[in-house]
Amino acid sequence: MTPHLQKLIDKLQFLPGVGPKTAMRMAMNMLKDKDLTNELGHTIVEAVAAINHCEQCRNFSEGPKCSICSDNTRDHNIICVIETPSDLMSVEESMCFTGRYYVLMGRISPIDGIGPEDIGIPQLIEQCATQHITEVILATNSTVEGEVTAQYITNQLKPLKIPCSRIGYGMPIGGELEYLDGNTVKQALLSRKNWANTH
Amino acid sequence: MTPHLQKLIDKLQFLPGVGPKTAMRMAMNMLKDKDLTNELGHTIVEAVAAINHCEQCRNFSEGPKCSICSDNTRDHNIICVIETPSDLMSVEESMCFTGRYYVLMGRISPIDGIGPEDIGIPQLIEQCATQHITEVILATNSTVEGEVTAQYITNQLKPLKIPCSRIGYGMPIGGELEYLDGNTVKQALLSRKNWANTH
Repeated sequence: MTPHLQKLIDKLQFLPGVGPKTAMRMAMNMLKDKDLTNELGHTIVEAVAAINHCEQCRNFSEGPKCSICSDNTRDHNIICVIETPSDLMSVEESMCFTGRYYVLMGRISPIDGIGPEDIGIPQLIEQCATQHITEVILATNSTVEGEVTAQYITNQLKPLKIPCSRIGYGMPIGGELEYLDGNTVKQALLSRKNWANTH
Repeated sequence: MTPHLQKLIDKLQFLPGVGPKTAMRMAMNMLKDKDLTNELGHTIVEAVAAINHCEQCRNFSEGPKCSICSDNTRDHNIICVIETPSDLMSVEESMCFTGRYYVLMGRISPIDGIGPEDIGIPQLIEQCATQHITEVILATNSTVEGEVTAQYITNQLKPLKIPCSRIGYGMPIGGELEYLDGNTVKQALLSRKNWANTH
Protein backbone atom coordinates (compact mmCIF):
# COMPACT_ATOMS: atom_id res chain seq x y z
CA MET A 1 0.00 0.00 0.00
CA THR A 2 1.68 3.21 -1.14
CA PRO A 3 1.15 6.48 0.82
CA HIS A 4 -0.88 8.14 -1.96
CA LEU A 5 -3.01 5.01 -2.35
CA GLN A 6 -3.64 4.90 1.40
CA LYS A 7 -4.60 8.57 1.42
CA LEU A 8 -6.93 8.06 -1.55
CA ILE A 9 -8.65 5.13 0.21
CA ASP A 10 -9.01 7.22 3.39
CA LYS A 11 -10.50 10.20 1.59
CA LEU A 12 -12.94 8.10 -0.47
CA GLN A 13 -14.55 6.89 2.75
CA PHE A 14 -16.05 10.33 3.21
CA LEU A 15 -18.54 9.39 0.44
CA PRO A 16 -21.94 8.09 1.64
CA GLY A 17 -22.08 4.30 1.95
CA VAL A 18 -18.38 3.84 1.26
CA GLY A 19 -16.41 1.84 3.84
CA PRO A 20 -12.80 0.63 3.73
CA LYS A 21 -13.51 -2.33 1.39
CA THR A 22 -15.51 -0.31 -1.14
CA ALA A 23 -12.97 2.53 -1.00
CA MET A 24 -10.19 0.05 -1.82
CA ARG A 25 -12.18 -1.38 -4.71
CA MET A 26 -12.84 2.14 -6.00
CA ALA A 27 -9.19 3.14 -5.68
CA MET A 28 -8.01 0.00 -7.50
CA ASN A 29 -10.51 0.67 -10.25
CA MET A 30 -9.46 4.30 -10.51
CA LEU A 31 -5.84 3.38 -11.14
CA LYS A 32 -6.89 1.18 -14.04
CA ASP A 33 -7.95 4.21 -16.08
CA LYS A 34 -5.80 7.16 -15.12
CA ASP A 35 -7.26 9.55 -17.70
CA LEU A 36 -10.84 9.14 -16.52
CA THR A 37 -9.74 9.29 -12.88
CA ASN A 38 -7.76 12.45 -13.47
CA GLU A 39 -10.85 13.99 -15.09
CA LEU A 40 -12.98 12.91 -12.12
CA GLY A 41 -10.54 14.57 -9.72
CA HIS A 42 -10.59 17.84 -11.67
CA THR A 43 -14.39 17.70 -12.04
CA ILE A 44 -14.78 17.42 -8.27
CA VAL A 45 -12.47 20.38 -7.60
CA GLU A 46 -14.21 22.50 -10.27
CA ALA A 47 -17.70 21.58 -9.05
CA VAL A 48 -16.85 22.58 -5.49
CA ALA A 49 -15.61 25.94 -6.75
CA ALA A 50 -18.53 26.58 -9.12
CA ILE A 51 -21.60 25.42 -7.22
CA ASN A 52 -23.22 27.67 -4.63
CA HIS A 53 -26.71 28.23 -3.28
CA CYS A 54 -29.50 30.24 -4.88
CA GLU A 55 -30.00 33.36 -2.76
CA GLN A 56 -33.78 32.97 -2.92
CA CYS A 57 -34.55 29.24 -2.67
CA ARG A 58 -31.27 27.79 -1.27
CA ASN A 59 -31.07 25.19 -4.06
CA PHE A 60 -27.69 24.53 -5.72
CA SER A 61 -26.91 27.20 -8.28
CA GLU A 62 -23.94 28.43 -10.28
CA GLY A 63 -25.19 32.03 -10.33
CA PRO A 64 -26.85 34.16 -7.61
CA LYS A 65 -30.28 32.77 -8.58
CA CYS A 66 -31.08 29.21 -9.71
CA SER A 67 -32.71 28.41 -13.06
CA ILE A 68 -36.18 28.01 -11.52
CA CYS A 69 -36.06 31.24 -9.49
CA SER A 70 -34.96 33.19 -12.56
CA ASP A 71 -37.58 31.57 -14.83
CA ASN A 72 -40.33 34.12 -15.51
CA THR A 73 -42.72 31.53 -16.95
CA ARG A 74 -43.12 29.96 -13.50
CA ASP A 75 -45.58 31.06 -10.84
CA HIS A 76 -43.49 32.77 -8.18
CA ASN A 77 -46.47 33.17 -5.82
CA ILE A 78 -46.63 29.49 -4.89
CA ILE A 79 -43.77 27.98 -2.89
CA CYS A 80 -43.22 24.26 -2.55
CA VAL A 81 -41.04 23.56 0.51
CA ILE A 82 -38.86 20.44 0.23
CA GLU A 83 -35.95 19.00 2.16
CA THR A 84 -33.30 18.38 -0.50
CA PRO A 85 -32.43 19.08 -4.16
CA SER A 86 -33.21 15.40 -4.88
CA ASP A 87 -36.75 16.02 -3.62
CA LEU A 88 -36.96 19.00 -5.97
CA MET A 89 -36.10 16.72 -8.87
CA SER A 90 -38.83 14.26 -7.80
CA VAL A 91 -41.44 17.04 -7.80
CA GLU A 92 -40.19 18.36 -11.15
CA GLU A 93 -40.42 14.87 -12.63
CA SER A 94 -44.10 14.73 -11.66
CA MET A 95 -44.54 17.65 -14.11
CA CYS A 96 -47.55 19.02 -12.23
CA PHE A 97 -46.02 21.91 -10.32
CA THR A 98 -45.23 25.24 -11.95
CA GLY A 99 -44.49 27.33 -8.87
CA ARG A 100 -41.14 27.86 -7.24
CA TYR A 101 -39.34 25.95 -4.49
CA TYR A 102 -37.74 26.53 -1.14
CA VAL A 103 -35.06 23.93 -0.45
CA LEU A 104 -34.42 23.52 3.27
CA MET A 105 -31.24 21.46 2.70
CA GLY A 106 -32.20 19.41 5.74
CA ARG A 107 -34.98 18.97 8.28
CA ILE A 108 -35.49 19.95 11.92
CA SER A 109 -33.72 17.30 13.95
CA PRO A 110 -32.95 18.17 17.57
CA ILE A 111 -31.02 14.90 17.99
CA ASP A 112 -28.55 16.09 15.33
CA GLY A 113 -28.61 19.66 16.67
CA ILE A 114 -30.41 20.97 13.58
CA GLY A 115 -32.87 23.75 14.40
CA PRO A 116 -35.10 25.99 12.23
CA GLU A 117 -32.28 28.53 11.71
CA ASP A 118 -29.97 25.87 10.27
CA ILE A 119 -32.42 25.06 7.48
CA GLY A 120 -33.30 28.64 6.57
CA ILE A 121 -36.84 28.73 7.95
CA PRO A 122 -36.56 32.39 9.13
CA GLN A 123 -35.64 33.45 5.56
CA LEU A 124 -38.61 31.45 4.20
CA ILE A 125 -40.98 33.19 6.62
CA GLU A 126 -39.47 36.55 5.68
CA GLN A 127 -40.00 35.83 1.96
CA CYS A 128 -43.61 34.89 2.70
CA ALA A 129 -44.07 38.13 4.65
CA THR A 130 -42.48 40.45 2.09
CA GLN A 131 -43.45 38.82 -1.23
CA HIS A 132 -46.94 38.16 -2.58
CA ILE A 133 -47.22 34.43 -1.76
CA THR A 134 -50.63 32.81 -2.30
CA GLU A 135 -49.83 29.28 -1.09
CA VAL A 136 -47.09 27.34 0.65
CA ILE A 137 -47.09 23.61 -0.13
CA LEU A 138 -45.24 21.60 2.51
CA ALA A 139 -43.64 18.64 0.76
CA THR A 140 -41.18 17.52 3.41
CA ASN A 141 -40.85 13.77 3.90
CA SER A 142 -43.36 11.77 5.89
CA THR A 143 -40.76 10.94 8.54
CA VAL A 144 -40.83 12.13 12.14
CA GLU A 145 -38.40 14.96 11.30
CA GLY A 146 -40.21 15.83 8.07
CA GLU A 147 -43.57 16.07 9.86
CA VAL A 148 -42.11 18.17 12.68
CA THR A 149 -40.54 20.50 10.12
CA ALA A 150 -43.84 20.86 8.24
CA GLN A 151 -45.70 21.50 11.50
CA TYR A 152 -43.15 24.12 12.59
CA ILE A 153 -43.43 26.02 9.30
CA THR A 154 -47.25 25.87 9.49
CA ASN A 155 -47.14 27.44 12.96
CA GLN A 156 -44.74 30.15 11.81
CA LEU A 157 -46.95 31.02 8.83
CA LYS A 158 -50.20 31.23 10.84
CA PRO A 159 -49.82 34.95 11.80
CA LEU A 160 -49.21 35.80 8.10
CA LYS A 161 -52.52 34.14 7.14
CA ILE A 162 -50.94 32.49 4.08
CA PRO A 163 -52.71 29.29 2.96
CA CYS A 164 -50.48 26.40 3.88
CA SER A 165 -51.02 22.84 2.58
CA ARG A 166 -49.42 19.46 3.23
CA ILE A 167 -49.02 16.96 0.37
CA GLY A 168 -51.53 14.10 0.50
CA TYR A 169 -50.94 10.83 2.32
CA GLY A 170 -52.16 7.51 0.95
CA MET A 171 -51.45 4.42 -1.10
CA PRO A 172 -48.58 4.88 -3.62
CA ILE A 173 -49.65 4.33 -7.25
CA GLY A 174 -48.92 0.69 -8.08
CA GLY A 175 -48.90 -0.09 -4.35
CA GLU A 176 -50.66 -3.11 -2.88
CA LEU A 177 -52.78 -2.86 0.28
CA GLU A 178 -51.31 -6.13 1.53
CA TYR A 179 -47.87 -4.58 1.81
CA LEU A 180 -48.83 -1.18 3.21
CA ASP A 181 -48.38 -0.45 6.90
CA GLY A 182 -51.41 0.26 9.06
CA ASN A 183 -50.76 3.99 9.29
CA THR A 184 -50.66 4.40 5.53
CA VAL A 185 -53.88 2.41 5.11
CA LYS A 186 -55.50 4.59 7.77
CA GLN A 187 -54.39 7.78 5.99
CA ALA A 188 -55.51 6.37 2.64
CA LEU A 189 -58.96 5.65 4.07
CA LEU A 190 -59.23 9.08 5.71
CA SER A 191 -58.24 10.85 2.49
CA ARG A 192 -60.67 8.86 0.31
CA LYS A 193 -62.41 10.82 -2.44
CA ASN A 194 -65.87 10.53 -3.88
CA TRP A 195 -65.48 9.14 -7.38
CA ALA A 196 -69.20 9.06 -8.17
CA ASN A 197 -69.15 12.49 -9.78
CA THR A 198 -65.80 12.44 -11.52
CA HIS A 199 -65.51 8.86 -12.87
CA MET B 1 -29.43 20.65 -12.05
CA THR B 2 -26.48 22.96 -12.71
CA PRO B 3 -23.95 22.10 -15.48
CA HIS B 4 -21.11 21.39 -13.02
CA LEU B 5 -23.40 19.25 -10.88
CA GLN B 6 -24.52 17.28 -13.94
CA LYS B 7 -20.90 16.77 -15.01
CA LEU B 8 -19.94 15.63 -11.51
CA ILE B 9 -22.79 13.10 -11.46
CA ASP B 10 -21.76 11.83 -14.91
CA LYS B 11 -18.11 11.41 -13.96
CA LEU B 12 -18.86 9.69 -10.64
CA GLN B 13 -20.61 6.90 -12.53
CA PHE B 14 -17.24 5.71 -13.74
CA LEU B 15 -16.68 4.31 -10.22
CA PRO B 16 -17.48 0.60 -9.73
CA GLY B 17 -21.03 -0.06 -8.56
CA VAL B 18 -22.10 3.57 -8.92
CA GLY B 19 -25.18 4.24 -11.05
CA PRO B 20 -27.09 7.49 -11.63
CA LYS B 21 -28.95 7.37 -8.27
CA THR B 22 -25.83 6.67 -6.18
CA ALA B 23 -23.85 9.26 -8.12
CA MET B 24 -26.51 11.86 -7.34
CA ARG B 25 -26.49 10.93 -3.66
CA MET B 26 -22.68 11.17 -3.62
CA ALA B 27 -22.69 14.53 -5.38
CA MET B 28 -25.30 15.95 -2.99
CA ASN B 29 -23.26 14.69 -0.06
CA MET B 30 -20.07 16.15 -1.50
CA LEU B 31 -21.55 19.64 -1.71
CA LYS B 32 -22.46 19.48 1.96
CA ASP B 33 -18.81 19.57 2.98
CA LYS B 34 -16.86 21.52 0.40
CA ASP B 35 -13.53 21.39 2.22
CA LEU B 36 -13.45 17.60 2.42
CA THR B 37 -14.67 17.29 -1.16
CA ASN B 38 -12.02 19.68 -2.41
CA GLU B 39 -9.40 17.59 -0.60
CA LEU B 40 -10.83 14.41 -2.16
CA GLY B 41 -10.57 15.95 -5.63
CA HIS B 42 -6.95 16.97 -5.10
CA THR B 43 -6.10 13.58 -3.55
CA ILE B 44 -7.41 11.81 -6.65
CA VAL B 45 -5.41 14.01 -9.02
CA GLU B 46 -2.25 13.61 -6.93
CA ALA B 47 -2.67 9.84 -6.58
CA VAL B 48 -3.02 9.42 -10.35
CA ALA B 49 0.20 11.38 -10.84
CA ALA B 50 2.17 9.62 -8.08
CA ILE B 51 1.22 5.95 -8.37
CA ASN B 52 2.88 3.73 -10.94
CA HIS B 53 3.78 0.06 -11.24
CA CYS B 54 6.76 -1.72 -9.68
CA GLU B 55 9.13 -2.65 -12.50
CA GLN B 56 9.64 -6.10 -11.03
CA CYS B 57 6.29 -7.30 -9.66
CA ARG B 58 3.81 -4.93 -11.41
CA ASN B 59 2.18 -3.99 -8.08
CA PHE B 60 1.31 -0.33 -7.46
CA SER B 61 4.37 1.62 -6.42
CA GLU B 62 5.45 5.23 -6.05
CA GLY B 63 9.07 4.47 -6.91
CA PRO B 64 10.61 2.15 -9.52
CA LYS B 65 10.38 -0.80 -7.07
CA CYS B 66 7.59 -1.47 -4.56
CA SER B 67 8.21 -1.80 -0.82
CA ILE B 68 8.16 -5.62 -0.93
CA CYS B 69 10.52 -5.95 -3.92
CA SER B 70 13.01 -3.58 -2.27
CA ASP B 71 12.76 -5.31 1.13
CA ASN B 72 15.94 -7.34 1.69
CA THR B 73 14.51 -9.27 4.64
CA ARG B 74 12.11 -11.09 2.29
CA ASP B 75 12.90 -14.25 0.35
CA HIS B 76 13.22 -13.14 -3.27
CA ASN B 77 13.55 -16.71 -4.55
CA ILE B 78 9.89 -17.59 -3.99
CA ILE B 79 7.28 -15.84 -6.11
CA CYS B 80 3.59 -15.83 -5.24
CA VAL B 81 1.53 -15.05 -8.35
CA ILE B 82 -1.76 -13.24 -7.67
CA GLU B 83 -4.33 -11.44 -9.77
CA THR B 84 -4.70 -8.08 -8.05
CA PRO B 85 -3.16 -5.83 -5.35
CA SER B 86 -6.18 -6.65 -3.16
CA ASP B 87 -5.20 -10.32 -3.37
CA LEU B 88 -1.68 -9.34 -2.32
CA MET B 89 -3.12 -7.71 0.78
CA SER B 90 -5.11 -10.86 1.58
CA VAL B 91 -1.95 -12.99 1.41
CA GLU B 92 0.01 -10.45 3.47
CA GLU B 93 -2.74 -10.47 6.10
CA SER B 94 -2.35 -14.25 6.46
CA MET B 95 1.20 -13.45 7.69
CA CYS B 96 2.60 -16.78 6.52
CA PHE B 97 4.36 -15.78 3.32
CA THR B 98 7.75 -14.11 3.32
CA GLY B 99 8.61 -14.36 -0.37
CA ARG B 100 7.86 -11.82 -3.05
CA TYR B 101 4.88 -11.37 -5.36
CA TYR B 102 4.04 -11.07 -9.00
CA VAL B 103 0.83 -9.13 -9.54
CA LEU B 104 -0.82 -9.98 -12.86
CA MET B 105 -3.25 -7.05 -12.61
CA GLY B 106 -5.86 -9.27 -14.24
CA ARG B 107 -6.40 -12.82 -15.44
CA ILE B 108 -6.46 -14.55 -18.83
CA SER B 109 -9.93 -13.95 -20.22
CA PRO B 110 -10.37 -14.48 -23.97
CA ILE B 111 -13.96 -13.20 -23.77
CA ASP B 112 -12.63 -9.80 -22.63
CA GLY B 113 -9.71 -9.98 -25.05
CA ILE B 114 -7.14 -10.38 -22.24
CA GLY B 115 -4.27 -12.66 -23.19
CA PRO B 116 -1.04 -13.69 -21.39
CA GLU B 117 0.84 -10.62 -22.73
CA ASP B 118 -1.73 -8.24 -21.24
CA ILE B 119 -1.09 -9.53 -17.73
CA GLY B 120 2.70 -9.63 -17.94
CA ILE B 121 3.17 -13.42 -18.08
CA PRO B 122 6.17 -13.22 -20.52
CA GLN B 123 8.00 -10.93 -18.06
CA LEU B 124 7.21 -13.36 -15.21
CA ILE B 125 8.63 -16.27 -17.20
CA GLU B 126 11.70 -14.19 -18.05
CA GLN B 127 12.26 -13.36 -14.37
CA CYS B 128 11.99 -17.09 -13.55
CA ALA B 129 14.50 -17.88 -16.28
CA THR B 130 17.07 -15.22 -15.35
CA GLN B 131 16.76 -15.05 -11.55
CA HIS B 132 17.31 -17.82 -9.03
CA ILE B 133 13.69 -18.79 -8.34
CA THR B 134 13.11 -21.88 -6.19
CA GLU B 135 9.30 -21.96 -6.24
CA VAL B 136 6.35 -20.30 -7.93
CA ILE B 137 3.13 -20.39 -5.90
CA LEU B 138 0.06 -19.87 -8.08
CA ALA B 139 -2.52 -18.06 -5.97
CA THR B 140 -4.90 -16.88 -8.70
CA ASN B 141 -8.60 -17.15 -7.86
CA SER B 142 -10.48 -20.41 -8.11
CA THR B 143 -12.64 -19.09 -10.96
CA VAL B 144 -12.58 -20.37 -14.53
CA GLU B 145 -10.26 -17.53 -15.58
CA GLY B 146 -8.07 -17.90 -12.49
CA GLU B 147 -7.64 -21.63 -13.07
CA VAL B 148 -6.86 -21.12 -16.77
CA THR B 149 -4.28 -18.48 -15.86
CA ALA B 150 -2.64 -20.80 -13.28
CA GLN B 151 -2.60 -23.66 -15.81
CA TYR B 152 -1.08 -21.45 -18.50
CA ILE B 153 1.73 -20.28 -16.20
CA THR B 154 2.40 -23.90 -15.10
CA ASN B 155 2.78 -24.93 -18.76
CA GLN B 156 5.12 -22.01 -19.48
CA LEU B 157 7.29 -22.84 -16.46
CA LYS B 158 7.63 -26.56 -17.29
CA PRO B 159 10.70 -26.18 -19.59
CA LEU B 160 12.46 -24.17 -16.86
CA LYS B 161 11.96 -27.01 -14.35
CA ILE B 162 10.98 -24.59 -11.59
CA PRO B 163 8.75 -26.15 -8.89
CA CYS B 164 5.28 -24.74 -9.36
CA SER B 165 2.50 -25.11 -6.77
CA ARG B 166 -1.20 -24.21 -6.62
CA ILE B 167 -2.75 -23.03 -3.34
CA GLY B 168 -4.89 -25.69 -1.64
CA TYR B 169 -8.58 -26.17 -2.24
CA GLY B 170 -10.97 -27.12 0.55
CA MET B 171 -13.38 -26.01 3.22
CA PRO B 172 -12.87 -22.40 4.38
CA ILE B 173 -12.07 -22.08 8.10
CA GLY B 174 -15.36 -21.46 9.88
CA GLY B 175 -17.19 -22.93 6.88
CA GLU B 176 -20.02 -25.44 7.23
CA LEU B 177 -20.26 -28.52 5.04
CA GLU B 178 -23.99 -27.97 4.64
CA TYR B 179 -23.42 -24.73 2.76
CA LEU B 180 -20.45 -25.81 0.61
CA ASP B 181 -20.96 -26.68 -3.04
CA GLY B 182 -20.28 -30.22 -4.24
CA ASN B 183 -17.03 -29.33 -5.97
CA THR B 184 -15.54 -27.79 -2.84
CA VAL B 185 -16.55 -30.81 -0.74
CA LYS B 186 -14.96 -33.06 -3.35
CA GLN B 187 -11.72 -31.06 -3.28
CA ALA B 188 -11.78 -30.98 0.52
CA LEU B 189 -12.10 -34.77 0.60
CA LEU B 190 -9.36 -35.26 -1.98
CA SER B 191 -6.98 -32.98 -0.10
CA ARG B 192 -7.65 -34.60 3.32
CA LYS B 193 -4.64 -34.97 5.58
CA ASN B 194 -3.69 -37.65 8.05
CA TRP B 195 -4.05 -36.15 11.50
CA ALA B 196 -3.09 -39.28 13.43
CA ASN B 197 0.57 -38.31 13.64
CA THR B 198 0.29 -34.59 14.14
CA HIS B 199 -2.70 -34.18 16.49
